[in-house]
Amino acid sequence: MKLPLGYRFASVYAGIRKAERDDLGLILSETPASAAAVFTQNRVQAAPVKLARRHLRLSHGVMRAILVNAGNANCATRTGEQAARAVCDALAARLQAPVEQILPASTGVIGVELDAQRIIRALPNLIRKLSADRFMDVAHAIMTTDTVPKTSSREIVIRNRTVRIAGMTKGAGMIQPRMATTLGFVATDAHIEPSVLKQMLHDGIERSYNRISVDGDTSTNDTVAVFANGASGVEPGDGERILFGEALAGVLEDLARQIARDGEGARKLITIDVEGARDDAAAQAIARAIANSPLVKTAIAGSDANWGRILCAAGNAGVDFDPAKVDIYLQNALVCRGGLAAEFSEPEMKELLDKRECAIRLVVNGSGQGRCRFWTCDLTEDYIRINASYRT
Amino acid sequence: MKLPLGYRFASVYAGIRKAERDDLGLILSETPASAAAVFTQNRVQAAPVKLARRHLRLSHGVMRAILVNAGNANCATRTGEQAARAVCDALAARLQAPVEQILPASTGVIGVELDAQRIIRALPNLIRKLSADRFMDVAHAIMTTDTVPKTSSREIVIRNRTVRIAGMTKGAGMIQPRMATTLGFVATDAHIEPSVLKQMLHDGIERSYNRISVDGDTSTNDTVAVFANGASGVEPGDGERILFGEALAGVLEDLARQIARDGEGARKLITIDVEGARDDAAAQAIARAIANSPLVKTAIAGSDANWGRILCAAGNAGVDFDPAKVDIYLQNALVCRGGLAAEFSEPEMKELLDKRECAIRLVVNGSGQGRCRFWTCDLTEDYIRINASYRT
Repeated sequence: MKLPLGYRFASVYAGIRKAERDDLGLILSETPASAAAVFTQNRVQAAPVKLARRHLRLSHGVMRAILVNAGNANCATRTGEQAARAVCDALAARLQAPVEQILPASTGVIGVELDAQRIIRALPNLIRKLSADRFMDVAHAIMTTDTVPKTSSREIVIRNRTVRIAGMTKGAGMIQPRMATTLGFVATDAHIEPSVLKQMLHDGIERSYNRISVDGDTSTNDTVAVFANGASGVEPGDGERILFGEALAGVLEDLARQIARDGEGARKLITIDVEGARDDAAAQAIARAIANSPLVKTAIAGSDANWGRILCAAGNAGVDFDPAKVDIYLQNALVCRGGLAAEFSEPEMKELLDKRECAIRLVVNGSGQGRCRFWTCDLTEDYIRINASYRT
Repeated sequence: MKLPLGYRFASVYAGIRKAERDDLGLILSETPASAAAVFTQNRVQAAPVKLARRHLRLSHGVMRAILVNAGNANCATRTGEQAARAVCDALAARLQAPVEQILPASTGVIGVELDAQRIIRALPNLIRKLSADRFMDVAHAIMTTDTVPKTSSREIVIRNRTVRIAGMTKGAGMIQPRMATTLGFVATDAHIEPSVLKQMLHDGIERSYNRISVDGDTSTNDTVAVFANGASGVEPGDGERILFGEALAGVLEDLARQIARDGEGARKLITIDVEGARDDAAAQAIARAIANSPLVKTAIAGSDANWGRILCAAGNAGVDFDPAKVDIYLQNALVCRGGLAAEFSEPEMKELLDKRECAIRLVVNGSGQGRCRFWTCDLTEDYIRINASYRT
């Protein structure tokens, strides 16, 4: 992975999670970077989310560092705001940067007090370890029930000069972003004004993080942030912004898809395409209803071409459509035509559905042009096993 | 169980489901009865649901019989309407009743053609078996993934004379009624006008079937019907109607609770009480969000007092409240006070949560008077096992 210029990364074990595995990460831009972020829409919001919002506003979208811990969400905690502030203050002092240029983030269990001192004590070591190539260390440190680290990168050439974008994310459960899911951090060495970066992030989020669901639960800590420090010396012009925005959206989409693929207990990534709906919003509502149906997700787990459940889930989306005009494809094979069973071979379909990637395509044959692509995963016994004993 | 007067019941095996277990049931009122019913709000509706709606309208709420099959939902089928009509026609001819006095219902797999001839061939035997005491036979015949039959009854005394209400229901998966879930049939020998019965049913449904969820999926075949044939000779007067309505709602609530308790793979019935919300609708939205959270349901399965997930789920309900004013009780023990951890003993709480019934109470300490009681069940590995291979 070609990493963007002008950033350094580090992680350490600060003693927040029980397992002795790095739980504190730092992403530092050597110079103040344009910054944009989106946060959870849950009514209950963690202390670091509230503080990050505030810092982003106070800094007018110019920031230096992301400080993130796993193992504790710092949500619904008595000393939460104090802890988040103390940690940012301590880091800002060490970096000799204004505190509002620090973006805090936390992930882990809800309702347990976060011991800020552990993080503060770990800062000297964390800063000492900062290095331009420790990107993957941070990607590992933010993992909770994730089974693999999740990263994505792009290089694009603008006026013969290269600009790099690299992102990392985490998340496996409590995933149904309405704005952004769990944690995602993207760094680029392009030069982009904060207001432009903000718009690009919102456009990209809309077709990536806002299009995945593992279990329909939206976390209290969701944060996706992007930094652009300009270290490449390249500022995309008006025409090149589309190119850059597409590359950024590509990284976000890649990261979001990795979250769905690594959903708790999941064995399969499910891609859902809905076409021909009244409008994009209707298509999205149908796709989301299918993605959140435990019956669809268990059928896919069992490689069962149970298209009736897909049609039933679509019918619960709260949008109007004519069931008699619906075609459903599984792995590109027609299983339902005009709302009725199509002819297909059950054994062949079972084999097709045994693959690690499953495609559901639902077409409403009307005059509508609405479409949506959405990602989710199958629902297996392991989801239950992981979540019946998360705190113990 | 004291059964209402003037009804007869029967069930047979008509060869619709694979397992040789009765799959066809008949509930007959000896005289035309006042009838009311509520149906699924899924956009995709089964043929018998559409026909039942039509018959109810054409008969002006006066009906003779409920004919129900399990093993096939007769939904998304080429010949569905034809099959439902043929079956009703055949039964009406044999009963010498107008066809619009027959209420058809089906439950089972979606998207497989229903062989009407099998049902029509079984009718003579079905009618021959009709008996005043075969109520439980029908309750058994309508079961699909249910592990137990579900019935409930009440007797009330009005002006020194007894009126009886008896109901049966089925359902274990695809359960999140928006209007009524799966199948429920209630018979009473009271005399009630159709319009009054309709209102009573709607009131009762609102606090029973509309307050349960197993997996958030609303079936295509949901139907709850109530018959009142007047065979007791008792017509509740204005004041007594409240008494009767309460008894009817009690039966509906009892039936609905049995569905939640017998949710696919469930080991525990979860009762959720939300209090102090802005209004009842807000309380219901919060209760429903908690009931549909797989993370809450798996935590209860694991007897884990993970109140953070309850708070998180409430935050996703789409209603406004102050998290800092929320108290949460598990089994009547305070686990979260003012949005923060309360002191409780983990081992004691684990023991409390190991019971077959779990109570979640969430109080929003504001000025609001909104409240809602809701039922769901825990989410276990068995839900996955049952649903990964439902058709095979």
